[in-house]
Amino acid sequence: MRAECRDIREIEGLKARYFRFVDRKEWDALCELFLPDATFAFPGLGSFESAVDGVAAIRAALGTSVTVHHGHMPEIELVGDGEARGVWAMDDLVIRPPDAPAIPDYPAELQAGLHGYGHYHETYRQQDGRWRIATLELVRLHIEPLGRGQPSSGSPRDEAE
Amino acid sequence: MRAECRDIREIEGLKARYFRFVDRKEWDALCELFLPDATFAFPGLGSFESAVDGVAAIRAALGTSVTVHHGHMPEIELVGDGEARGVWAMDDLVIRPPDAPAIPDYPAELQAGLHGYGHYHETYRQQDGRWRIATLELVRLHIEPLGRGQPSSGSPRDEAE
Amino acid sequence: MRAECRDIREIEGLKARYFRFVDRKEWDALCELFLPDATFAFPGLGSFESAVDGVAAIRAALGTSVTVHHGHMPEIELVGDGEARGVWAMDDLVIRPPDAPAIPDYPAELQAGLHGYGHYHETYRQQDGRWRIATLELVRLHIEPLGRGQPSSGSPRDEAE
Repeated sequence: MRAECRDIREIEGLKARYFRFVDRKEWDALCELFLPDATFAFPGLGSFESAVDGVAAIRAALGTSVTVHHGHMPEIELVGDGEARGVWAMDDLVIRPPDAPAIPDYPAELQAGLHGYGHYHETYRQQDGRWRIATLELVRLHIEPLGRGQPSSGSPRDEAE
Repeated sequence: MRAECRDIREIEGLKARYFRFVDRKEWDALCELFLPDATFAFPGLGSFESAVDGVAAIRAALGTSVTVHHGHMPEIELVGDGEARGVWAMDDLVIRPPDAPAIPDYPAELQAGLHGYGHYHETYRQQDGRWRIATLELVRLHIEPLGRGQPSSGSPRDEAE
Repeated sequence: MRAECRDIREIEGLKARYFRFVDRKEWDALCELFLPDATFAFPGLGSFESAVDGVAAIRAALGTSVTVHHGHMPEIELVGDGEARGVWAMDDLVIRPPDAPAIPDYPAELQAGLHGYGHYHETYRQQDGRWRIATLELVRLHIEPLGRGQPSSGSPRDEAE
């Protein structure tokens, strides 16, 4: 595989693991996807200036929730030696349990959960031959509060296996 | 990057911008993604035979709505010199404001908004080294009317930042 | 296109056809995507040990329903000569008609339909120059029952064309 094709595929695979590790709650593995000094900007959650702080914020907000994050339609561009940037369409379903701690910057109607839509604007840097996320900013198109009593909060394993 | 790989990636990037420009309402940039004589067939909206008319129809239907369009699972095939075709799975969320003009061919239950599903069947042509959309047809699998009063019509920036 | 890039693209195209053939109910074409001795593990539906039995089970469960299956964020890895494995994020919307036969292992609340989320864990094998699915396991993150009377069960062609 030629370098450019491989680099873009590796960045897409990096983001695929990002989504999977968030939804599977693999926090240590998630942290490894970022450069140590990565920056994060999440509407409603705040801004963070290290991988450790950013992942801690994600974990605090989502750790006890069922979440589903999907990425769509990557636009990845190599912009220099070992540097790249990308835009991803996204949606996220967050089902928060009744005893989840309130997210201070979220309005009351979103505390029980949400289905959100937007775009990630990111940059990537290659270090020791491995691509990692350098900066991540989420820009929202829309957030839908989850209807009361819907969806069900049971786990899929209870329901359908 | 080898030519075939690059061509397919460029077509995928073209469609990524299509979705982003629709949802961000960048109408002039959207128009540039099509050949001037591109044809459009949208169930419920009609058929159009130029980039200008097709984009004007999209704008008239969606311009005052919050929309989220996502593409999935591209099947792109190069079929000749500077010619390609593709199928994309898709879904679109359209939240129409109370004062949006009625879409004549839509039933009453869809006037407030919808969550739709289907496939785009498209062809592409390369002109002056740049791929553009030559024909676009949307075939629906299903359309769900949005429930009354749900989802909220507030903007995400009001709600969650 | 170099071999590795082409192989990964072919596997992604294979899975794109999987989704399209399920939702378009092209059962014979669907069966052809699997090795004859393919294995399937679907939570709630059971396990199957041939392409014929697996596709028959999918057809029995979904054949009279409107369904929309989308894949996201592929992680494909070539692991040997003509062997590969992959993980896909997914979601599936299943709208079952009132007269659909009950799925025995599903709770009552899912019999009318569901919106599910999870990951496919798959392996692929190349035979006679063509990639096919060798094993498929679906692992759920969450399943939401469809609300009563919502979404509408009408066909999109009735509603919006």
